[in-house]
Amino acid sequence: MKIFHTADWHLGKLVQGVYMTEDQRFVLQQFIQDIEKEQPDVVIVAGDLYDRAVPPTEAVQLLDEVLETIVLKLKIPVLAIAGNHDSPSRLHFGSKIMEQNGLHMSGRLTKELRPVIFHDEFGPVHFHLVPYCDPSMVRNVFADEEVRTHQDAARKIITEINSRLDPEARHVLIGHAFVTPFGDEEENTSDSERPLSIGGAEYVDAQLFSDFHYTALGHLHQAHYVMEEKIRYAGSILKYSISEEHHRKGYSVVELDQNGEVTITKKELTPKRDLRTVEATMSELLTHPVCEDYVFVRLLDETPILSPMEKIRSVYPNAMHVERKQIVTQAISATKQTRSKMSDLELFQSFYEQVKGEKATEETERIFKEIVDELLQDENETAVQTEREVVTN
Amino acid sequence: MKIFHTADWHLGKLVQGVYMTEDQRFVLQQFIQDIEKEQPDVVIVAGDLYDRAVPPTEAVQLLDEVLETIVLKLKIPVLAIAGNHDSPSRLHFGSKIMEQNGLHMSGRLTKELRPVIFHDEFGPVHFHLVPYCDPSMVRNVFADEEVRTHQDAARKIITEINSRLDPEARHVLIGHAFVTPFGDEEENTSDSERPLSIGGAEYVDAQLFSDFHYTALGHLHQAHYVMEEKIRYAGSILKYSISEEHHRKGYSVVELDQNGEVTITKKELTPKRDLRTVEATMSELLTHPVCEDYVFVRLLDETPILSPMEKIRSVYPNAMHVERKQIVTQAISATKQTRSKMSDLELFQSFYEQVKGEKATEETERIFKEIVDELLQDENETAVQTEREVVTN
Repeated sequence: MKIFHTADWHLGKLVQGVYMTEDQRFVLQQFIQDIEKEQPDVVIVAGDLYDRAVPPTEAVQLLDEVLETIVLKLKIPVLAIAGNHDSPSRLHFGSKIMEQNGLHMSGRLTKELRPVIFHDEFGPVHFHLVPYCDPSMVRNVFADEEVRTHQDAARKIITEINSRLDPEARHVLIGHAFVTPFGDEEENTSDSERPLSIGGAEYVDAQLFSDFHYTALGHLHQAHYVMEEKIRYAGSILKYSISEEHHRKGYSVVELDQNGEVTITKKELTPKRDLRTVEATMSELLTHPVCEDYVFVRLLDETPILSPMEKIRSVYPNAMHVERKQIVTQAISATKQTRSKMSDLELFQSFYEQVKGEKATEETERIFKEIVDELLQDENETAVQTEREVVTN
Repeated sequence: MKIFHTADWHLGKLVQGVYMTEDQRFVLQQFIQDIEKEQPDVVIVAGDLYDRAVPPTEAVQLLDEVLETIVLKLKIPVLAIAGNHDSPSRLHFGSKIMEQNGLHMSGRLTKELRPVIFHDEFGPVHFHLVPYCDPSMVRNVFADEEVRTHQDAARKIITEINSRLDPEARHVLIGHAFVTPFGDEEENTSDSERPLSIGGAEYVDAQLFSDFHYTALGHLHQAHYVMEEKIRYAGSILKYSISEEHHRKGYSVVELDQNGEVTITKKELTPKRDLRTVEATMSELLTHPVCEDYVFVRLLDETPILSPMEKIRSVYPNAMHVERKQIVTQAISATKQTRSKMSDLELFQSFYEQVKGEKATEETERIFKEIVDELLQDENETAVQTEREVVTN
């Protein structure tokens, strides 16, 4: 059985105030072309179809178009679950009516946990759809007061599923969670993944999934496997944060054989516009060819530049962010207290070094002292004058 | 062909800050029982399924339950359109995937205007689903700059539909608009119907629909026909405003015969709680039997009552509003200017008359004068005393 595993579409997402809808449509069209060409038996979307509970209507239309094409035009069934960004009830709407046409959308957790079953020449494959849910929801659905953490919640659900697992069939689990090989180590997060909960209770141990022939995960934006090749994140379809700059985005093709062994191939999707860092001085940057990419510019100029974004956008019209290269020197760590004890000259030396990244020359220091003396003299004269005025009035 | 015509469910509606979800579920369960018993060929919901573009999740779940039951359990097809309260794109989601299972949901207008066709023993019946749309949307879809008003928009759409009408078939139009027999007369609106637009451009002439064998309308909350028996509002399923107090809520059963003639029967739905006015003095009201109805209380007491709502809710726990009977007298119309010219006694007389609804007696006036004189004397003494204190300090 050939399975396309994708996740974290985040339709309706804004990156630095820019809607990604056009970029999302662009890669999803490639995805649809791949489906048409490769004819998988089933397509999995492992959560975070939308970026928020109430997505903009453009996102709703895009998802509608994409699912309609895959399910009705290409006649490939889709198995999708709600992620932490989706609204369980809104995503669940119409799911019963749609499932007969091949769209299996699990928004809300129910205690039945009925698998969706497909067959290939070797027999049935059971797909277990577990939508994202807070521990409190799991506690509620299974009336189990012991469920406190995401690990408890996942253990509860998996134990329920395992207890009625048909040993003759092959099994695929679809989930949306922060799965780690250790259960409590912090890793692999990126800026665009909202933490599931505060205080380390959000991790789920990969060990829980060892009975499934494949576990199709969503939530973490970098494609990778956890503990075993068969427990895997597909990653997001696009870079949604500069911290994802070096990810290779796409989806996984999973071939499930007769014995339940999987062979996995990673397929890349080419974005309409890349999201990446550009490091250059302004004069260098202005010689670059015009490019539509979403760039985060780090300027290497030693001196400040007026209206830098305006200049950058003449070359990179979709530039998202600009900053000057951080020059870390001893002076930066000077606290307010130590600064308050510095002489004028010491303050200048420290400031100069911080901004220019090198010590002021003796000549520069001489000019500074001259100017300061001049200013101070002016100030004293003004003060005397002001005093005189007060007296004479 | 037997058609159940309903409209204006407004799921997610708040009346005076109270969610109607439970009441809506109650009448919709009756509706479902009627469907089960009467086995219509098709159910029409003529817009405003939800009360707003982004309804609360409870409303989404209720609609999901109701449609799932009618379409999947009872296997009766549903034809629904977006009203002005619905979000076109959100309601449209999944519609193509659902239509093969009998749910035909038209959220967004498209220029194809393809009818949904059902058959009975006499041949085909074409249902033309026209979702609510602003004139600007119609202008856009048909690239017709002439479309300015709702009348223009409806004329444009109906002309398009009429131009490809199969003369052999019978035709039902489903629409959501303010249809009048005159095209521009203001009538039949209730407080809970948000106006479609400002300035009289919202009316649609009933004449436009004369070619259809039946026109199933939504928007106006009172069940009634317009111009002809066959152009009809089903009305809302519940009273959503005290201005709808005397409406009889329900739906229409439409029997369409071989020749396209219709026979209409109005069916009522019994609300869980009625919405009505109670007029009584507080002491009378407190003798009423306890009642769950949503009541708007008009107190007939002549004197003000402390914490009236608290008292009323001991009898009517779901009371929504309380007011004292409005006593309109000459005095109310006294402007600020005329009042500023009144003497203390005149002001009192006017106030007394306004509050009590009758003139003060001479005895009352005498008491008033005595008290005022006493107060004024006190005030003068205090003033003198205060002056003295200032001098001695």
